[in-house]
Amino acid sequence: MPFNSFEDLRAACQNLPAGSDGAAQAVAHRQDILTKPQGSLGRLETIVAWLARWQGRDMPKLDKVKVIVFAGSHGITAQGVSAYPSEVTVQMVANFAAGGAAINQLARIANAELDVIPLELDRQTGDFTQEPAMNEAEFLAAVSTGYESVGKDIDLICFGEMGIGNTTPAAAIAAGLFGGGAERWTGRGTGVDDAGLKRKIAAIDKGLARHTAQAADPLKLAAALGGRELAAIFGATLAARHLGVPVLLDGFVCSAAVAPLARLHPQGLAHVLAAHVSAEAGHRNLLEAMELSPLLDLGMRLGEGSGACLAINLVRSALECHTGMASFAEAGVSEK
Amino acid sequence: MPFNSFEDLRAACQNLPAGSDGAAQAVAHRQDILTKPQGSLGRLETIVAWLARWQGRDMPKLDKVKVIVFAGSHGITAQGVSAYPSEVTVQMVANFAAGGAAINQLARIANAELDVIPLELDRQTGDFTQEPAMNEAEFLAAVSTGYESVGKDIDLICFGEMGIGNTTPAAAIAAGLFGGGAERWTGRGTGVDDAGLKRKIAAIDKGLARHTAQAADPLKLAAALGGRELAAIFGATLAARHLGVPVLLDGFVCSAAVAPLARLHPQGLAHVLAAHVSAEAGHRNLLEAMELSPLLDLGMRLGEGSGACLAINLVRSALECHTGMASFAEAGVSEK
Repeated sequence: MPFNSFEDLRAACQNLPAGSDGAAQAVAHRQDILTKPQGSLGRLETIVAWLARWQGRDMPKLDKVKVIVFAGSHGITAQGVSAYPSEVTVQMVANFAAGGAAINQLARIANAELDVIPLELDRQTGDFTQEPAMNEAEFLAAVSTGYESVGKDIDLICFGEMGIGNTTPAAAIAAGLFGGGAERWTGRGTGVDDAGLKRKIAAIDKGLARHTAQAADPLKLAAALGGRELAAIFGATLAARHLGVPVLLDGFVCSAAVAPLARLHPQGLAHVLAAHVSAEAGHRNLLEAMELSPLLDLGMRLGEGSGACLAINLVRSALECHTGMASFAEAGVSEK
Repeated sequence: MPFNSFEDLRAACQNLPAGSDGAAQAVAHRQDILTKPQGSLGRLETIVAWLARWQGRDMPKLDKVKVIVFAGSHGITAQGVSAYPSEVTVQMVANFAAGGAAINQLARIANAELDVIPLELDRQTGDFTQEPAMNEAEFLAAVSTGYESVGKDIDLICFGEMGIGNTTPAAAIAAGLFGGGAERWTGRGTGVDDAGLKRKIAAIDKGLARHTAQAADPLKLAAALGGRELAAIFGATLAARHLGVPVLLDGFVCSAAVAPLARLHPQGLAHVLAAHVSAEAGHRNLLEAMELSPLLDLGMRLGEGSGACLAINLVRSALECHTGMASFAEAGVSEK
């Protein structure tokens, strides 16, 4: 296991590789000679520079793109915070295996390989209104599973999550890290009603009050209030940084999962591009708090990595323009 | 030629087929039984309903997707309104043929067929500060070329444009149709400097003043102030409506090109989905004036149909989810 203590993990979070300025500059130079007004491809141009910087390649590639969906089971569902029963998590994992979920379709059209990693679905995390969701060993085990799921040969990666009830730990982490109380960060998840939303806010405020001793340490906070799939996404995102793999970030749960990394290192999420802003209430605020600007804003709130996966073809399109376009000189087109 | 007078064309614009409510409802019903919280795919769900409505198919398809780029040459360039010399239009058409432009890469990755239709590039339109850009016959010829370019067997179509100087006629049409004077609608196009921007605004205001007699008739306005590629895009978008082909709308120039249709029929652009909002100054206002809500907002301002083409894979993704996902019953997933 790569991490045996909070201290091990903290050291790995604070000691992050910088990206390649040279590769990003090589992209910017090439963009300026391609047959288009400078800057006219907008974010498609900066996406390619971002790929280059974090792949460490002057000419980035997208030969191998991967989506990993982590699934976890949440004790907090005992508080009536979700519109769906918790057995749906296991049922949806079976649906992923059978190819029937949204992420299966989206991964296929993005030409991305899909892996699903269930995390001890028969063992719920603790109900954080009563006890920590995970102790140190449980948290580190989930982080390590995520960390070890990322290979060095991947050119771009998306993480997704499945776990009935998991917008509750996500909102709790966001509130714990960025303040403002539960109400600021809590939305309806899969579609909880008004009474459920009240229960959700109350549960989160209770959890925040119970675990104030952990609030100053982002990792201890993520253990006390989080979930296994969130911890795994945190670990996988950290691994991606160490291995030179750019990350497309999905929605609210994934954003909360990686938020501790933003807190532990000022450039902790520089290798992460926000694929979309979801319709879940707290997501826009959370992206702003982490200074991430989403590519897409389509009112999605499904999870599974669906928003991230949808953005893969935008990234592919950006790279195709960069690699395939002719320069002014090659095409014999007059400049300004 | 399908249109021999403004009156012919006006009749075709005012007599538009409605879409299929039944097909759109069939999509909505299926969306509600797929394994996801209802509405959680956001605009991906409404995109499929839109495809169904305008294809007139309960289960839409995207077997044949096409991009047509129309190119025109503009007399208004004599007023110094563009950052690039007007010979670039011909050079870029050659670049399209050689596969070196952005649209070639974007069409390839969207699995779309690309056609380029140059419109009398050796014969510029009139300088609208001095005379009408086109007379009735010239305008109808360009509209008819566009109209005849669309086949019935196409499942989704994007139109693009190439024409140095063409953000000037686009802004002139927008100002003529929606008011507010040239300044409200005029941007830097391919990157004109401050002095050029002033010349551009002055030219448009001069054109608006010269052609006030045409202002009450959207078609006569489009002839007096427009351009051949804009007229062709107008005709092609009209044909798409008559043939049951949904249209993805590109940026500022394409939006101005189709704006007369919004003026001639209250549902004139219902078969048109705005693919993106560009960085060109007037585009956001223009989409709002036509009540179109863009899918993408990525700071692009290239033209060529690039923004529309970039959105094709979003539409494909939406349809793949719709056709490929399992229902709750099929997957054995518990409902709320």
